[in-house]
Amino acid sequence: MFITFEGIDFSGKTTQITAFTKQLRACGGEVVLVREPGGTTISEEIRSLLLDPAYDSMDAVTEFLLFSSSRSQLVRETILPTLQDGKHVIADRFFDSSTAYQGYGRGLNIDDILHVHHLATHGLSPDITFFIDITLEESYRRRAQLGREIDRMERADDAFFERVRTGYLHLLETNPQRFVRIDGMNDEQRISDLIWTEVSSRLVEGEDSKEGPHEK
Amino acid sequence: MFITFEGIDFSGKTTQITAFTKQLRACGGEVVLVREPGGTTISEEIRSLLLDPAYDSMDAVTEFLLFSSSRSQLVRETILPTLQDGKHVIADRFFDSSTAYQGYGRGLNIDDILHVHHLATHGLSPDITFFIDITLEESYRRRAQLGREIDRMERADDAFFERVRTGYLHLLETNPQRFVRIDGMNDEQRISDLIWTEVSSRLVEGEDSKEGPHEK
Repeated sequence: MFITFEGIDFSGKTTQITAFTKQLRACGGEVVLVREPGGTTISEEIRSLLLDPAYDSMDAVTEFLLFSSSRSQLVRETILPTLQDGKHVIADRFFDSSTAYQGYGRGLNIDDILHVHHLATHGLSPDITFFIDITLEESYRRRAQLGREIDRMERADDAFFERVRTGYLHLLETNPQRFVRIDGMNDEQRISDLIWTEVSSRLVEGEDSKEGPHEK
Repeated sequence: MFITFEGIDFSGKTTQITAFTKQLRACGGEVVLVREPGGTTISEEIRSLLLDPAYDSMDAVTEFLLFSSSRSQLVRETILPTLQDGKHVIADRFFDSSTAYQGYGRGLNIDDILHVHHLATHGLSPDITFFIDITLEESYRRRAQLGREIDRMERADDAFFERVRTGYLHLLETNPQRFVRIDGMNDEQRISDLIWTEVSSRLVEGEDSKEGPHEK
């Protein structure tokens, strides 16, 4: 199963990915974790370019194509071979981040974005995408609390992040089968439970459909 | 005017670009030279990734998207502003190289490639493209003569370079207005003359059409 986590910064994705991975492994699942941008030698090189605050003059299209190239390498080198081995892949961000940030956020044409996604993912799409939703105010509150330095992608104005969140909400509407919205204001344990319930029910469905009804 | 030079390796592009730039400047033209991949701080970073022989595992789509991201930054930061200032831009390779190398050479879908070109070039297309055509045998002969080390892109098999050349010949057929084939087996001076004749006639046409026929 290929499961991705999405959300604006400080939504709690990483905490939830850690908890979820632990649960999945406890049940005997083999799991490979990836994060975007990055995850392969080439993709990590691209990541350092993307996050370097020195590159303030980076054009939105350049940025989008760099994310896409990093993704293409990650899919080809890691995600596809892992899935073919029957293992699970959990990704901290995937193509929906580009649709939300570069498409809705920076205003690139959504059809162009989707066309490049198809190319960069070699046709692969996640089985489930968890969108952990918090408000912009909550994101700022958590950032202030952590007091850590921000990278180039995190340096943008309020209106930008508001468009990103709206983008995620559009994606939720247009991909009702794949997208699952989780209210990020719930406490951590509650969020973990919601995620686990959703995945385990789909894993059971998957097993059922593998056996086929006539074999019962 | 935006003029690009294309051809397989060792076709003599660089020599011709140098000669042509000198001529254009001697006539009072302001010229900015660019090369692909590269030409801006960000694009040069991408260039070093693309040409590094260590990245042998680079996927064809990753490679294509990296070339495209480098191009996007070059167009936005250098080519468009230069043209808007009324200067000429001469490019050592542009999007046709990606169509020939990643499309025809590596076998990526040509429609996908053209779609990404439109995005990465922000809609810009060259006014003239000189395709300096030599055979594969001639390219190898010149490479052996120079005896220099080769980069990742130059490390490919004969069949690959044969497909690249065929790709250029297809581009010539499908873009008869923009593409000008120059026989690279001619001597350097003859090639320079052919290029100069072509450009100067188009510059004169351009001037004529600017004035408009009713003003004559």
